[in-house]
Amino acid sequence: MQIYADNAATTKPSKAAVRAMLSCLEQNYGNPSSLHHIGQAAAEALLQARQDIAGCLGCTAREIYFTSGGSEADNQALRSAAYAGARSGKKHLISTAIEHHAILHTLKQLEEEGFSVTLLPVSETGMVTPEAVQAAIRPDTCLVSVMFANNEIGTIEPIAEIGAVCREKGVLFHTDAVQAVGHVPIDLSQLPVDMLSLSAHKFHGPKGVGVLYAKRGTPLHSLICGGAQERGMRAGTENLPAIAGMAAALREACANLEQNAAYVAGLRDRLIAGLETIPHSLLSGDRKNRLAGNVNFCFEGVAGEALLLLLDAKGICASSGSACTSGSLEPSHVLLAVGVPYEAAHGSLRLSLSAENTPEEVEYLLKAVPEVVTRLRSMSPVWRDLEEGRKPHVI
Amino acid sequence: MQIYADNAATTKPSKAAVRAMLSCLEQNYGNPSSLHHIGQAAAEALLQARQDIAGCLGCTAREIYFTSGGSEADNQALRSAAYAGARSGKKHLISTAIEHHAILHTLKQLEEEGFSVTLLPVSETGMVTPEAVQAAIRPDTCLVSVMFANNEIGTIEPIAEIGAVCREKGVLFHTDAVQAVGHVPIDLSQLPVDMLSLSAHKFHGPKGVGVLYAKRGTPLHSLICGGAQERGMRAGTENLPAIAGMAAALREACANLEQNAAYVAGLRDRLIAGLETIPHSLLSGDRKNRLAGNVNFCFEGVAGEALLLLLDAKGICASSGSACTSGSLEPSHVLLAVGVPYEAAHGSLRLSLSAENTPEEVEYLLKAVPEVVTRLRSMSPVWRDLEEGRKPHVI
Repeated sequence: MQIYADNAATTKPSKAAVRAMLSCLEQNYGNPSSLHHIGQAAAEALLQARQDIAGCLGCTAREIYFTSGGSEADNQALRSAAYAGARSGKKHLISTAIEHHAILHTLKQLEEEGFSVTLLPVSETGMVTPEAVQAAIRPDTCLVSVMFANNEIGTIEPIAEIGAVCREKGVLFHTDAVQAVGHVPIDLSQLPVDMLSLSAHKFHGPKGVGVLYAKRGTPLHSLICGGAQERGMRAGTENLPAIAGMAAALREACANLEQNAAYVAGLRDRLIAGLETIPHSLLSGDRKNRLAGNVNFCFEGVAGEALLLLLDAKGICASSGSACTSGSLEPSHVLLAVGVPYEAAHGSLRLSLSAENTPEEVEYLLKAVPEVVTRLRSMSPVWRDLEEGRKPHVI
Repeated sequence: MQIYADNAATTKPSKAAVRAMLSCLEQNYGNPSSLHHIGQAAAEALLQARQDIAGCLGCTAREIYFTSGGSEADNQALRSAAYAGARSGKKHLISTAIEHHAILHTLKQLEEEGFSVTLLPVSETGMVTPEAVQAAIRPDTCLVSVMFANNEIGTIEPIAEIGAVCREKGVLFHTDAVQAVGHVPIDLSQLPVDMLSLSAHKFHGPKGVGVLYAKRGTPLHSLICGGAQERGMRAGTENLPAIAGMAAALREACANLEQNAAYVAGLRDRLIAGLETIPHSLLSGDRKNRLAGNVNFCFEGVAGEALLLLLDAKGICASSGSACTSGSLEPSHVLLAVGVPYEAAHGSLRLSLSAENTPEEVEYLLKAVPEVVTRLRSMSPVWRDLEEGRKPHVI
């Protein structure tokens, strides 16, 4: 059996997304900036995709800026708010300890440029509170950026409440919704959010394309200068095939959102219940405010990489932490932030499901994961210490 | 008859490119950073594409940095050299008056950040001389950036000679080769170039993907922070489908380069010879050092936009200046830089051919263009002034 349970890393493009891309690659290949009929056909398809995406999100087409993906959108959102803030002497940004590195590393760079940054701590289930945001806002705060849902532990943050605090205080609010869009209902006409990032390949769209939503009137800074595409805010020939693929995937994801979320949450809950019976296992993230597809466990005495390799040998594609940091030997900053001990954080397993997974696959996972954990523990001195009630060595 | 003669704006993706993309979209959809077998298959395909592209360019795979396109690569090249230069007090950049806006606008931003910029003038055929570069280099110069071939008038610059001057002076040299790669032989193992930008959709690859080549040891600045992709120099999940499509297209373009260039240059020369018989027509660009597919004429007394619309009605896709600036009412900065008078620069026509164009299409163009020019001139007061020997009014 082959099981793809790494949908938080990337999803398989849907048939509709591939079809939309293929149609642009083979027929609608013009440059949307060209005046002739082939260019104008591309421009029309681009506008249609923009309107479709805006419709899915509850905003206007003019508030959609196409980017090369979630990381670029995050970078642009932070720099836009920072540079606009700096012009009126506001050089303080607030974010959280569990953000994606596209946020954290950009904040680090902004600190080097003279900005100051407050990273809010989170609860042991990864929740950020509106009260903590409110308390951190200073007169010189130019931006609050809190992710919609965490990529590792699946915790969904109280974005509406945090946004309301920001609006009341007159501070711009950005949310990295890369893991949420297409999976959690989002209606920007109701949500007090000024900027939002999304990435198509997290909802069965293509890689290499995303959106920065910026509410009308939000000051934007262009990361990539050149042509006048995206109303002067993002240069480069528009990637119509990917944009059309993204629109197709988002339409599909939003149309089936409730049904898919209920189905996937059922698989998730069965999986969590089963894996919790493994001794010395620890579920990370919030049980209630949780992405439908996210399962994240730490198994004490087990090294994450070995776990992944043995699961892979059984046909199971999973991850330990996020894919973006898989080359790193450091344990996940998210797990450390929610209080998982350093040694246990090395042994995390993220299973991220989609509507393409089946109950049979879940049963297979419930058989395979305990087997692999048992096998690894049988070889682990840390586990022997644990079983015998001694304080374990660090792995 | 429908004729696509706007290949400098964008090309139709080749069958091989689409096939390579489809294979990644449908099968090899993993995240190359994931450790499991689906991720590792994607990582292998990514490495293969990187090696193929390096092979086509005569560099090593580690010198290839994937970007979202030519504009991003240009932006990154300039900022990399500028920020590295600034660290040793070198804050002067040299470029030319006929660069793409991805270069010119980034230089403008760098000027606002305190850098100084020299834009070299060009000859009336658009040539930059190594002597002019040499004369402009100062002790505080950190970068020379000269495009390989111009996107509007097709002039090919003496890159080897300019690079030799830069190397002798110890100054980094970047070339925007977006219009050249796949069309002009480029061997980076022989060429004294430190950085080079390319864009896949200019050689029948997909949109939304490009390369920044950076010679080993060249200091790079990351425009997009986050994950550790591209050895920490460009965050964001790698866009494998587009990268694989780019590699397929580049392999094909390089394998057939000489043959295609000879064929396309034949079409171009026939077209130039025919269009030159139109009275008061002016070929822009260099006759000898010219992209095989580029034809650029100004027809006095004719407005470029009207020309394009009437040609479009006859099924001909062409452009006036570059696609990136088509929304602008300003005449082309390139045509002004080569000395075309302001009023004539409004009436330019760029026909850019590929190996998919045919001699029959050229014959059709040679019939259609003079007809349209004659018709527009019959309605033009400027043309009546010209014909009667008066100084024409500005359009």
